[in-house]
Amino acid sequence: MTPSKVFGQILKEFRIERGLSQERLGFESGYHRTYISLLERGRKSPSLNTIFKLAEALNITPSAMILRVEEELGTSKKSN
Amino acid sequence: MTPSKVFGQILKEFRIERGLSQERLGFESGYHRTYISLLERGRKSPSLNTIFKLAEALNITPSAMILRVEEELGTSKKSN
Repeated sequence: MTPSKVFGQILKEFRIERGLSQERLGFESGYHRTYISLLERGRKSPSLNTIFKLAEALNITPSAMILRVEEELGTSKKSN
Repeated sequence: MTPSKVFGQILKEFRIERGLSQERLGFESGYHRTYISLLERGRKSPSLNTIFKLAEALNITPSAMILRVEEELGTSKKSN
């Protein structure tokens, strides 16, 4: 698993928890729905500025999102 | 101040604290010295995968680096 793949999963989790569509999250963060979809599938590695915009739209701190990625990568390393 | 600009300053701080040249940090993280220089000057916004590689080379967690960026952005917002 790469950081961007895990980030995509976490992004999707947070988006769904908040009841947002990909389109709505895109609108709130200034990106097109198709880019949100690419991120969620781990096909794109978001830039730092993008991470900050997405986190703001999801009402979470960027560092909390990254911490979740680290934890997930740590877990998958252990379990695989 | 943008997140990438602040990230660049923090990257430089950490690199110097560890006594690494831009060339050495580049070597450890798999990037060219010129890319490290662009990052430090905030001319490039690092991708998530790049943040993870740099943090590993600097022996710090990616979330700790991002937290420092948040803190710095918070401070500059207050003081400006």
